[in-house]
Amino acid sequence: MKVKEILPKVKANLSKERYEHTLRVIQTAKELAVIHGIDTEKVELASALHDYAKCKDELVLKQYIKKNCLDSDLLNYHYELWHAHVAAHFAEYTLKIKDKSILNAIKYHTTGRAGMDEVELIVFIADFIEPARQIPGVDKVRDSAKTDLHEAALLVFKGTIPYLISQEKVVYPGTVNAYNDLIKFKGDR
Amino acid sequence: MKVKEILPKVKANLSKERYEHTLRVIQTAKELAVIHGIDTEKVELASALHDYAKCKDELVLKQYIKKNCLDSDLLNYHYELWHAHVAAHFAEYTLKIKDKSILNAIKYHTTGRAGMDEVELIVFIADFIEPARQIPGVDKVRDSAKTDLHEAALLVFKGTIPYLISQEKVVYPGTVNAYNDLIKFKGDR
Repeated sequence: MKVKEILPKVKANLSKERYEHTLRVIQTAKELAVIHGIDTEKVELASALHDYAKCKDELVLKQYIKKNCLDSDLLNYHYELWHAHVAAHFAEYTLKIKDKSILNAIKYHTTGRAGMDEVELIVFIADFIEPARQIPGVDKVRDSAKTDLHEAALLVFKGTIPYLISQEKVVYPGTVNAYNDLIKFKGDR
Repeated sequence: MKVKEILPKVKANLSKERYEHTLRVIQTAKELAVIHGIDTEKVELASALHDYAKCKDELVLKQYIKKNCLDSDLLNYHYELWHAHVAAHFAEYTLKIKDKSILNAIKYHTTGRAGMDEVELIVFIADFIEPARQIPGVDKVRDSAKTDLHEAALLVFKGTIPYLISQEKVVYPGTVNAYNDLIKFKGDR
């Protein structure tokens, strides 16, 4: 399946703003893939689908998670985390995408996970740094992403986890595992 | 078992500085217990034993954990976390202390855990705020501890987790669970 085939379906499911964000993530991810010698088709496809379910209603997402027996622990966390798992399930079972890197890149683009491969890292980072993002520290991540995907992802977590805590928001345990994994990976380098 | 009976054994196992810290934690915990109407004997005993294994060599702690089949996942984290579990095991199996609040207060005084009861909260907080501590934000925790143990513990985590991340240190998952639990608890109040 090619990105061009999937984009009309993505567009039909997203708001104008969300679709334009998706196009920027695709472009950013593609640029990172070229820099790091990673399969551009994989990162484009994952980027195209990463927010596929973002505009679904909370109740619709909850019903999809229950009906399709996705990880029910997700429902104990903020619904902003749900769309990624729903989109990955849709990609696998409706679009019949079998590539694990693509599916994981969609599934973990919001939380990250321990052991992300390069495709996953690129989509995760591209979603954070696409040109319209004005998050504090984003320029540092943009610079880092050109040379070191693991370091760039670590910078994302170093910003987001303390921010969540400063706002007294729950921190998804998988995100802390992802952070810890990058710290241990850095120690091993 | 009374605190007076146990203190000579504690003293024999600690450096002068660590023993003096222990005495300050006992006193601070006792004061908090009186304020909050919690059993002072329990918090004194747990405080007396909380650092019992703190001065043991890393290798001795590791061998104790392996020999006594304590949670082996601990060994994937910094050895600073190990002494608390070793002390709780010693309290239970050598000193024959059976009270779960006391044992948990010893075991989780460094990391915290989801679902801490008041005895655990008091020892956890007293260890952080005893008079010799000069940690940033400690005065805010001291004030908060007088009126709300959960809020005071939350303040500790709001300081320590971002600090660990700023230093690129691994964050123990149980600590994040403890933080999340306090956030959810706060939401339910």
